Amino acid sequence: MSEQRIEELSVNTIRTLAMDAVQKANSGHPGAPMGLAPAAYVLWQNHLRHNPKNPRWDNRDRFILSAGHASMLLYSLLHLTGYEQMTLEEIKNFRQWGSVTPGHPENFETEGVEMATGPLGQGFATAVGMAIAEAQLNARFDGVVDHFTYVICSDGDLMEGISHEAASLAGHLGLGKLVYIYDDNNITIDGGTDISFTEDVCARFESYGWHVQRVSDGTDLDAIDAAIEEAKEATDKPSIIALRTVIGYGSPAKAGTSSSHGSPLGDEEIARTKEALGWPSKEPFFIPEEVLEHMGAAADQGHKLESEWADRMEKYAAENPEKYAELTRRLAGELPENWDADLPQFAPDAKGMATRKASGKVVERIYAALPEFSGGSADLAGSNLTLFPDYGVFSRETRDAQNIHFGVREHAMGAAANGMNLHGGVRGFGATFLIFSDYMRPALRLAALMKTPTIGVFTHDSIGLGEDGPTHQPIEQLASLRAMPNMTVLRPADANETRECWKVAIENTTGPSAFALTRQAVATYDRDALGSIGDATRGAYILAGGEQTPDVILIGTGSEVGTCIAAYDILRAEGVAVRVVSMPSWEVFEAQDDAWKEKVLPKNVGRRVAVEAACSFGWERYVGLNGIVHSIPGFGKSAPAEVIFEKMGFTGDHIAKLAKSLL
Amino acid sequence: MSEQRIEELSVNTIRTLAMDAVQKANSGHPGAPMGLAPAAYVLWQNHLRHNPKNPRWDNRDRFILSAGHASMLLYSLLHLTGYEQMTLEEIKNFRQWGSVTPGHPENFETEGVEMATGPLGQGFATAVGMAIAEAQLNARFDGVVDHFTYVICSDGDLMEGISHEAASLAGHLGLGKLVYIYDDNNITIDGGTDISFTEDVCARFESYGWHVQRVSDGTDLDAIDAAIEEAKEATDKPSIIALRTVIGYGSPAKAGTSSSHGSPLGDEEIARTKEALGWPSKEPFFIPEEVLEHMGAAADQGHKLESEWADRMEKYAAENPEKYAELTRRLAGELPENWDADLPQFAPDAKGMATRKASGKVVERIYAALPEFSGGSADLAGSNLTLFPDYGVFSRETRDAQNIHFGVREHAMGAAANGMNLHGGVRGFGATFLIFSDYMRPALRLAALMKTPTIGVFTHDSIGLGEDGPTHQPIEQLASLRAMPNMTVLRPADANETRECWKVAIENTTGPSAFALTRQAVATYDRDALGSIGDATRGAYILAGGEQTPDVILIGTGSEVGTCIAAYDILRAEGVAVRVVSMPSWEVFEAQDDAWKEKVLPKNVGRRVAVEAACSFGWERYVGLNGIVHSIPGFGKSAPAEVIFEKMGFTGDHIAKLAKSLL
Repeated sequence: MSEQRIEELSVNTIRTLAMDAVQKANSGHPGAPMGLAPAAYVLWQNHLRHNPKNPRWDNRDRFILSAGHASMLLYSLLHLTGYEQMTLEEIKNFRQWGSVTPGHPENFETEGVEMATGPLGQGFATAVGMAIAEAQLNARFDGVVDHFTYVICSDGDLMEGISHEAASLAGHLGLGKLVYIYDDNNITIDGGTDISFTEDVCARFESYGWHVQRVSDGTDLDAIDAAIEEAKEATDKPSIIALRTVIGYGSPAKAGTSSSHGSPLGDEEIARTKEALGWPSKEPFFIPEEVLEHMGAAADQGHKLESEWADRMEKYAAENPEKYAELTRRLAGELPENWDADLPQFAPDAKGMATRKASGKVVERIYAALPEFSGGSADLAGSNLTLFPDYGVFSRETRDAQNIHFGVREHAMGAAANGMNLHGGVRGFGATFLIFSDYMRPALRLAALMKTPTIGVFTHDSIGLGEDGPTHQPIEQLASLRAMPNMTVLRPADANETRECWKVAIENTTGPSAFALTRQAVATYDRDALGSIGDATRGAYILAGGEQTPDVILIGTGSEVGTCIAAYDILRAEGVAVRVVSMPSWEVFEAQDDAWKEKVLPKNVGRRVAVEAACSFGWERYVGLNGIVHSIPGFGKSAPAEVIFEKMGFTGDHIAKLAKSLL
Repeated sequence: MSEQRIEELSVNTIRTLAMDAVQKANSGHPGAPMGLAPAAYVLWQNHLRHNPKNPRWDNRDRFILSAGHASMLLYSLLHLTGYEQMTLEEIKNFRQWGSVTPGHPENFETEGVEMATGPLGQGFATAVGMAIAEAQLNARFDGVVDHFTYVICSDGDLMEGISHEAASLAGHLGLGKLVYIYDDNNITIDGGTDISFTEDVCARFESYGWHVQRVSDGTDLDAIDAAIEEAKEATDKPSIIALRTVIGYGSPAKAGTSSSHGSPLGDEEIARTKEALGWPSKEPFFIPEEVLEHMGAAADQGHKLESEWADRMEKYAAENPEKYAELTRRLAGELPENWDADLPQFAPDAKGMATRKASGKVVERIYAALPEFSGGSADLAGSNLTLFPDYGVFSRETRDAQNIHFGVREHAMGAAANGMNLHGGVRGFGATFLIFSDYMRPALRLAALMKTPTIGVFTHDSIGLGEDGPTHQPIEQLASLRAMPNMTVLRPADANETRECWKVAIENTTGPSAFALTRQAVATYDRDALGSIGDATRGAYILAGGEQTPDVILIGTGSEVGTCIAAYDILRAEGVAVRVVSMPSWEVFEAQDDAWKEKVLPKNVGRRVAVEAACSFGWERYVGLNGIVHSIPGFGKSAPAEVIFEKMGFTGDHIAKLAKSLL
């Protein structure tokens, strides 16, 4: 043992912990941690600025293991550098119920894990958002926030389309404090990369404007160190280091083969590997004392780094108390008092406006009220109405800026917005047509899982977009988003509901929110005249009909609330006791108390018609087996919106008829 | 007029038709057709081998307008070259209800349109699948099938991640009969490409191994012609021609600006543009006679091409009657008689096997029975159990091969499978984990819209995958797929249901099918002993309990049918009349007649428990407001599968208790 240098011993500790934990769990991925151990060791030992005793230190470098299946690499590092939660017991409980060592890293379970990774490409792209946030805060707060974002990624990450979108965007934006290590091991799950992946990765990243290096020996600690150093010095470009590694390094039988990727090596092969590595013990989970001491020095070092930063902050508080107050508020994730005081109110108006337009008016005020509010559109800003250049457009030259042009890169946009939110100090959003939320769905799901409050501003939310036709008309998107756990879908019916929904979205800090906004104008309702009770912040409320016990309830969302109101007028004129429930958000409504739910949708009123210009999927929850859902049975159609609505029966007449069929 | 060469006149006809149609519709995208008219003209006039009188001629070159918003470009070409359905009247009805000229091209509405485009990147990637199919058929049938696939794409297409996946795959596979023209116009919807898109596109495609050319003047017909010619000659690499164009070419006020992208130019600007173009008429929709004659020659030429091919086919019939028969059967989209005769039957077995394993056994026989069956996995073949190298692995060297390694490129895989199916003669499928169906969702949706029978083989379909944890455990995916119109979701409960579901999927030729298959073993049920009535081909059937009128119905899908059977045993022992309904497919069940539906789920039996290890979303349809859905309220968990199932109440005991609570 003593023959091994401490560096080598440390590297081998990472390898053996990974082997042993996977073996004990009888499942997992030993190969990548074994190949990546030297790079991860150098990065964490020589470069990463973090504080194991305070995993949430605001100015820490971010480390993203985009190749999330290599989770044992990260857990080993957390244990060895002194993260208190990551005990050896937890590592022995790898992949077990209740452990903080799940199969793939989960930020909501484990301290020191910045995000959940595993779905390939997500970590790659989310890190870009973290670097955007850092650049914004760095510029606004005079360099007080100042750190790198490091990523380890795999072939799989680079094959995923999202890596292209994010890399192209990062190159365009010149995000120099991003440093990626690419685990170039020539192996995919199904075999050698020669079976499916023969692009020239380095040339590709050069085409994006990245700083590109190759390191030909993934065990050469000095070369890795020098490459990381050079990458850090390239401050005008994101950097990638293509590091030639050997998957399952050290295993006599399995190194360099896909068999070491996703299965335990087996007790015998582990014994052989430990021998080959010159490992001093046959005991599983053995950690040499000197390694604990050597790598554990990160704790003291981290304390020192955080203290220095605290000093700097203290100085900043004195120099610039206003900005200091803003920074600390933002980093704490707190909203300013009365942040919503200036949000616009909209007077009743039969002509009204599109909810995307109302949203634009609200968004402009949010930009003003919340300097942390930042995002933009995937090249549809003029349609999504999210661009307000008065608040700056983020670019190479302009870092203190709230607007972002994401380009036609919905997926990377979603992930980048996640990264901005995960970073802290910034509240990220992305905008596109509702139909294209499908392109960013894996990022939205990850936001929901990670409890990350990314906001999706999705406009053109139905057949109401008209002539662009069925490729652009959402049908199943509302149901698909509502089906996602911890996602809040908001489909306001008019301008005032739009404001109320934005309030819900901004104040929801434990998960993503998705707007569905109209392209076309909708009336601004006169709630007093209609006898409204409640508002959109309750998820569903009585828009029309007041306290009267109804014979029939019409439930609508978004633009179809207008259809319900038209039916309401017809039915009222015929003496029917009718109520219109506007239901902008199922999830918000479900979170209300039973009394409110019963008030809005009394159990004993079973005659219900739900009206939504989308698929009917899921609406039985509110109308039961005997109610009616007026929806769209297939896909949409290319024609002027008003023609489609009429042809598909979204008229007051038709809905009134359906309601009467229940009486 | 006569001063303009016929070529120029033709090009301007395309431009003016686009301007006029968009103006009349008062919506649409004139800019791209105006900039692309010269390239499209050269391609169609000098290169594209097609037959306007038979748009479905099997050996036609395929033309994909990936930039689908430029639909008027395609409609103009179809009209001018003599596609009978595409009358001038239809062009005047651009974007109107019932026209064959929807806002974006739709293959199911319009003859001569190969696929629906509009969602950016889809056309780009689908064309790769068409080229795969051509290469397969070309190799297997001795060069009888032999054509190019041409694509026009835009900045937006190239920003989308799917373009990276598809381009990397096409370069890897060396698909030389793919020719792309990139509309390099420096304009995005939100402004110049400098705001978001500054990568070096040509270098990027070189890194993928493509043949890359630049043409600096998008109006230089000879240069365009020469570039296409050279691209066709590069037979070992896909080709892209970066063509510098001017969006809205000819418009004095709007050329070269994003204002010409997505709105009518206005009557005045159209007049000025026509003047600038030297256009001979002020009448909208004017077409010079000589242009109709010149471009209409495509009809005779097409007839000649198809006749020559018919001769070749006749010769092939004589030379190789067996292959000829196979080819004509496949091109007609017909299955061989008794194609399913050799599919495996599985004996009852309490231990059973994973449905992915049963699927693998079925797939192997399908490969043998259907030489058109072709596809593979996104680098999870060993887990999806779809790889059978006996049927060849598609590569540069081996074209007559059914297995495809798609790499970690789910989205391109979905689109490529669509392209293979759209091409004809090939039945394309893609495989991955169910969770990653999210990555390919826009392609799946397009399949559903286009009525394309792509099959998704999605394994690891629930928390039952165990330790990989919540990033990998599907929760809302079943509901999201079921919500999609024209998508058939198949979640078989055991090995025999798996075979039956494959039969459904293969015989469904009007839309996509998505499997949800277990990682873990499930019993193979003894239907005789359980008193089964029906089978999985009915979508839902009585698995246990026979004709007896039940007190309570347990409805399960996939692995949770086993949980229902465990509860059934408990309840029966306690004297409860209980039925287990296995429901592998909602969509197939909904398509059954009322008598079957009533037989399986009698209306007067309201006591129902649905059991599915996923979100509950939508299940009210089958259990009503008073039934119980035992589901997963949030996300999954990393732990051994059996632990998660137990912790989350998926046990016979718990389900029996729930059922009894209804009695």
